[in-house]
Amino acid sequence: MTERVHDLRNRLRELTDLRNASHLLHWDQQTKMPPRGGAARADSIATLEGMIHEHFVSEETGRLLEEAAARLNGAPPESDEAALVRVVRRRWSKARRVPSELASELARAASVGQEAWVAARVNSDFSAFAPYLERNLELAREYVACFDGYDCAYDVLLDDYDPGMTTAVVAGLFVELRSELVPLIATIAEHADAVDDSILHGDFPVATQRRLVCETVAQMGFTDDSWRIDDAVHPFATSIGPGDVRITTRWDEAYFPSGLYGAMHECGHGLYEDGIAAELRGTPLGETESLAVHESQSRMWENMVGRGAPYASVLAARVSNLFGTPVAPGVMYRAVNKIQPSYIRVEADEATYGLHIVLRFELEQELIEGRLAVADLPEAWNSRFKEYFGLDVPDDSFGVLQDVHWSAGLVGYFPTYALGNLIAGQLWDRAHRDIPDLEQLLGAGELAPLREWLREHIHRHGAKFTSRELMERVVGGPVAVGPFVSYLKAKLGDVYGIKL
Amino acid sequence: MTERVHDLRNRLRELTDLRNASHLLHWDQQTKMPPRGGAARADSIATLEGMIHEHFVSEETGRLLEEAAARLNGAPPESDEAALVRVVRRRWSKARRVPSELASELARAASVGQEAWVAARVNSDFSAFAPYLERNLELAREYVACFDGYDCAYDVLLDDYDPGMTTAVVAGLFVELRSELVPLIATIAEHADAVDDSILHGDFPVATQRRLVCETVAQMGFTDDSWRIDDAVHPFATSIGPGDVRITTRWDEAYFPSGLYGAMHECGHGLYEDGIAAELRGTPLGETESLAVHESQSRMWENMVGRGAPYASVLAARVSNLFGTPVAPGVMYRAVNKIQPSYIRVEADEATYGLHIVLRFELEQELIEGRLAVADLPEAWNSRFKEYFGLDVPDDSFGVLQDVHWSAGLVGYFPTYALGNLIAGQLWDRAHRDIPDLEQLLGAGELAPLREWLREHIHRHGAKFTSRELMERVVGGPVAVGPFVSYLKAKLGDVYGIKL
Repeated sequence: MTERVHDLRNRLRELTDLRNASHLLHWDQQTKMPPRGGAARADSIATLEGMIHEHFVSEETGRLLEEAAARLNGAPPESDEAALVRVVRRRWSKARRVPSELASELARAASVGQEAWVAARVNSDFSAFAPYLERNLELAREYVACFDGYDCAYDVLLDDYDPGMTTAVVAGLFVELRSELVPLIATIAEHADAVDDSILHGDFPVATQRRLVCETVAQMGFTDDSWRIDDAVHPFATSIGPGDVRITTRWDEAYFPSGLYGAMHECGHGLYEDGIAAELRGTPLGETESLAVHESQSRMWENMVGRGAPYASVLAARVSNLFGTPVAPGVMYRAVNKIQPSYIRVEADEATYGLHIVLRFELEQELIEGRLAVADLPEAWNSRFKEYFGLDVPDDSFGVLQDVHWSAGLVGYFPTYALGNLIAGQLWDRAHRDIPDLEQLLGAGELAPLREWLREHIHRHGAKFTSRELMERVVGGPVAVGPFVSYLKAKLGDVYGIKL
Repeated sequence: MTERVHDLRNRLRELTDLRNASHLLHWDQQTKMPPRGGAARADSIATLEGMIHEHFVSEETGRLLEEAAARLNGAPPESDEAALVRVVRRRWSKARRVPSELASELARAASVGQEAWVAARVNSDFSAFAPYLERNLELAREYVACFDGYDCAYDVLLDDYDPGMTTAVVAGLFVELRSELVPLIATIAEHADAVDDSILHGDFPVATQRRLVCETVAQMGFTDDSWRIDDAVHPFATSIGPGDVRITTRWDEAYFPSGLYGAMHECGHGLYEDGIAAELRGTPLGETESLAVHESQSRMWENMVGRGAPYASVLAARVSNLFGTPVAPGVMYRAVNKIQPSYIRVEADEATYGLHIVLRFELEQELIEGRLAVADLPEAWNSRFKEYFGLDVPDDSFGVLQDVHWSAGLVGYFPTYALGNLIAGQLWDRAHRDIPDLEQLLGAGELAPLREWLREHIHRHGAKFTSRELMERVVGGPVAVGPFVSYLKAKLGDVYGIKL
């Protein structure tokens, strides 16, 4: 970037430094912090986030922003300078409406809420968590009240996770998605016996699972000099700055896909962070913009690569070798694609996953608009879960308490997961056109060509483009349901030996 | 604390929050961060430290300070309120003389320097480290130039680590200490064969050493709910806030005392952090003031407890049990007290340790005053080492590159280690008078009475008192050489079976 945005960049660089510190405070809280450190951690996060907010929304940032804008001199919209001014202006205008005290309090309540959630989830005790959720919703409503000109409260929240996306667009996509998934799941249910996933269940020592995961993520692009992998209750990925990407997973000794696919998922996120162009670093463009696009990366690596026939054969060989029991490629491939309604979102199959999101999308709209009381949430969850999945939720740890999001104040975040699936479907389609021998490469364990394609088309751009702009560039249109459903029907038809 | 200091406290609380974030950035850099994350980490630390500095030295802090001072109304000097005003005024007056840019740059150079040092030490390559040391010294001189009214440059630096202490006082104490140690070491050298430490050398798997350490620090007061222990190249202890104390150690598979006594040492530091009174937290009083007093805690636990006859018998039983080879209590006791000149300070015995410090105290005075050039430092180190210890330094990793301090800009820090020994001697003496059955308790593995005595007399006060003030309160006089030397002569006389 040139002289034109020099002063603005300098100011933004400090904010990046502080945000990296904040990322570390969060990472540590979920991986290393002793339990009793939670109160002080919430204070640190709240104070730091408050300062970041205050620093960003200051008149000085606004002045430097307008100075830079005036100097753009018709730089093309896709140039780094124009994108910087555009993205910073959007964020600044939005952030300025939020008082620093509220920004700080949102951060504190999120930190405190997560601590409460961890304990409540272990004990499956929703009532212990309810006051924290109540507080987070109250703050979310205060946050929404800072804005105007939106169709509904949920639009404001959604826009934080996928700028430019609206509740109406999501609802439309979800109606279409659901209309495809429900009959698909019903058809497969009639052929449930066609897939046996018993090879995934057994006794898999964590130490060996770690080796399985390390070999796999190394193939994806994880290197010891700039990545870490740790354990976390709720797996996540983060970056503390260039050269420092951190992923997490959790282990189930009786079911190895939990750790393996969790790690591939987070490594997919990590590759996005790792792939942002060096010249964008130190500015908001050096971060990511749309969590939907972010999720498209994690889910592509987890599902389209990790559960696709070619790379599943690579994994089958690795599993056979490490656990000492031969697993045939086809058996592995079919087993990891078994479709079966289940309780836990992060372990759901690709077909039922979307319904988990639809459920949350509906409930959180009702919560934020006050149409559903926190006290009534478990009952609402359980009855709707029964309706969508045909299952009775055994206790809240398998239901409403399973996800970290609401404890951390992340209302409006869930839809990005399903949008990520749709975007992944569109990118997967496009990547196959650009890399004709992609399937053969994946079958040979050569993951670099796909990673480099993603880096070129997605990762390197950081936050330059919204999901809408990015999709226009890469696939020539907005987020759509078609390619994901076609992909899913082709794979599951193959797996179940039926026409879908 | 009362209403009188309420507003000042609120402002200071934010600074504590940010300082805790800074502590985490440092801890992570030395324990978890991937190597390539170093550059961004240095930026984060520099920006955060710059903001902390700016926030602290502001006119607003000064105004609240004077308001609080005016409201003290004759509160006694040992009251929390009076101490808060006194300590904050001292720090504020000092910090105000330092421009924020310099504070930030000192933090950045320290972070960058540490990264360079880690690599240089591995390769024993002083020339790769020299430019960073040069830069740190240059910044230290700039820092010194912010002050006036001191006898010598070194006084300014020393005062940061032990407020009120002067180069002249340290020099006087060190002359006396050296005059005691040199003949003591010479006498013991004539009886070197009296102690056999071969039981300490062998093959000790790290996993078993970890159990040895965990059982030992648990007895000291380490609990899983508010402590962590990790590995680090250069062991240290830190606290990220109340309920979050972190210690580190390093492992030598061929020599278990390295990990064990390293951990006891750092746990001693951790107990100090853990023991600060809750009502002082969130203010500068909730930190510690004198690194000399801090070091008295770590060295008391490492040496006076850990290498004393009573607790050495507890350790002997634990070692026997874990490693499966019987070690007699007396054999263990004598082995861990073997006196022998050696290269590495942190592994030096109690008698030669002081000479390691004297060496560094002399060299860093010469460096800071420009009487010794960085390029000539290795040669100066090696020749003086030969003079003091009679040993030829094999390479710089065993010499001038062994310590992290200079890489992190910590010039003036080393003397506090030897002062810590002296203070520990005085406190050990006093604790024995207050707890008549102390030796029996230690022999029974009951460490809580000593810990609680230290908490009552030292820990809970946090930063309320300087080392001088604290020693006046606890032992009725200033730091002195006598008690430490008496303790050492009694123990080593016992160990070597000679009159010292």
